[in-house]
Amino acid sequence: MSRIAYVNGRYVPHRDAAVHVEDRGYQFADGVYEVCEVFGGRLVDETRHLDRLDRSLRELRIAAPMGRKALLTIMRETVARNRVRHGLVYLQVSRGVARRDHKFPDPSTPPALVVTAKSIDPAAGERTAAAGVAVITVPETRWARPDIKSVSLLPNVLAKQQAKEAGAGEAWFVDQDGTVLEGASTNAWIVTHDGRIVTRQADNRILRGVTRTGVVDLLGRRNLTLEERPFTVEEARQAAEAFITSASSLVIPVVKIDGAAVGDGKPGPTALALRGSLHQVTEMSHVVTAPYA
Amino acid sequence: MSRIAYVNGRYVPHRDAAVHVEDRGYQFADGVYEVCEVFGGRLVDETRHLDRLDRSLRELRIAAPMGRKALLTIMRETVARNRVRHGLVYLQVSRGVARRDHKFPDPSTPPALVVTAKSIDPAAGERTAAAGVAVITVPETRWARPDIKSVSLLPNVLAKQQAKEAGAGEAWFVDQDGTVLEGASTNAWIVTHDGRIVTRQADNRILRGVTRTGVVDLLGRRNLTLEERPFTVEEARQAAEAFITSASSLVIPVVKIDGAAVGDGKPGPTALALRGSLHQVTEMSHVVTAPYA
Repeated sequence: MSRIAYVNGRYVPHRDAAVHVEDRGYQFADGVYEVCEVFGGRLVDETRHLDRLDRSLRELRIAAPMGRKALLTIMRETVARNRVRHGLVYLQVSRGVARRDHKFPDPSTPPALVVTAKSIDPAAGERTAAAGVAVITVPETRWARPDIKSVSLLPNVLAKQQAKEAGAGEAWFVDQDGTVLEGASTNAWIVTHDGRIVTRQADNRILRGVTRTGVVDLLGRRNLTLEERPFTVEEARQAAEAFITSASSLVIPVVKIDGAAVGDGKPGPTALALRGSLHQVTEMSHVVTAPYA
Repeated sequence: MSRIAYVNGRYVPHRDAAVHVEDRGYQFADGVYEVCEVFGGRLVDETRHLDRLDRSLRELRIAAPMGRKALLTIMRETVARNRVRHGLVYLQVSRGVARRDHKFPDPSTPPALVVTAKSIDPAAGERTAAAGVAVITVPETRWARPDIKSVSLLPNVLAKQQAKEAGAGEAWFVDQDGTVLEGASTNAWIVTHDGRIVTRQADNRILRGVTRTGVVDLLGRRNLTLEERPFTVEEARQAAEAFITSASSLVIPVVKIDGAAVGDGKPGPTALALRGSLHQVTEMSHVVTAPYA
């Protein structure tokens, strides 16, 4: 079966899914996106993803391409048409197509909307979680508003590639004061030796991950102690555990930081337990895939 | 006559000029660009633009889409097919199309190339220069490598829009120490009361503008004193003149900074003289437009 994408009002074969060369997403990184998990044919945390999308659009003063109900219909339809049981929905909104000029185009310019979906083998994620990942640390090089989920991701690309070349799976951006901000595509966490779970507060220096929020919820339900505060690279290296979270990878234990083992160098029990329980607290919205199954 | 664009090997009507939704330029701002002036049917400073393109690609480890001769042929052909006498050629190279993943795709992935050209009424630029423009100042919010001419331009978009809403034509990014870095799409200059011409050194905090280099050349030929150093907003406000430079606007006098007049509030004689002489020192390469004229 070939993949199908939604592009500006039409469902088209993935190979033909194209946007204009003067789409402002292409020429100016003037767009935002969301990546939403699909689990067992259900959209995970759609409300939080669409709330965050609304916020990103509002911060950049990009008009919403349509109402939430219509957007959800398209996301579900794209999942269904691609017969995704486990995988991701990707959604991108840009400020639309206009003759190249930095300034916002005429307000009548419609925003552009692209939605794609792909299947992911859930066993691959389980294997990654069971092995844990290494992270490297890199200096913060991003623009001042990483709290907006924009496609301005070039520093993230470079950091992720640097991680790969160092044999690692993620790169943590480190602030000038030596504290960890977040990963190139994940939030960063540690577990202290007395069992407190620490992640940086979601101010405008990091993205408020939807999975991060899910883990915060889960900690509350389990009566585990959460501390939202900066932590240093050194504190992370000395921690009992470390882990990363994202909608595409859920919870993944970190076993090495810059080449040095975290704890005993094996995936930590807290991280693995959180991974195992996460879907118990997340919103799950059923996607009807029958007509395409 | 309808516009023509070059996209990945083909000349297509501008309205059909499209790139794939998984072009990394669209999803990650993982691409670079150049804007080259066309003056009287000639490409201006093509060597410097292509040298800078090479540097941008090298810094990001994006492969060149083709050799320089082939690229120049396409730029000229695009100018010719659009019958541009005065205007701009826009060229964008991205890291190509690949299934979405932050890391660089397989090295066999070909980079994507888009070239467009458009006509501009030269009288409009002359009118802007004769009136001068107001600038506002904004805090530096960009990523750490604005010296690379990447499409990671979202902060520039926001700054330019802020300028427009303040009745200004440009926004200057100001560093934490109060010194001016550069404009959202121009380099920034001042003229001191004793006739020295000052612009920030082209380190990795600003883009080395091709027109900036042209003005540096021109100063050398005229035995005018150049100082490449940071200057503060306050020094600019107290200067005899201020001006901005870019390939699309050449030299434009600045008459106001954050609402306060520079000098007597009129376009300065040095800026206007530099504008008038600039094309005497720039490389001019003839584009054969006859077959399409």
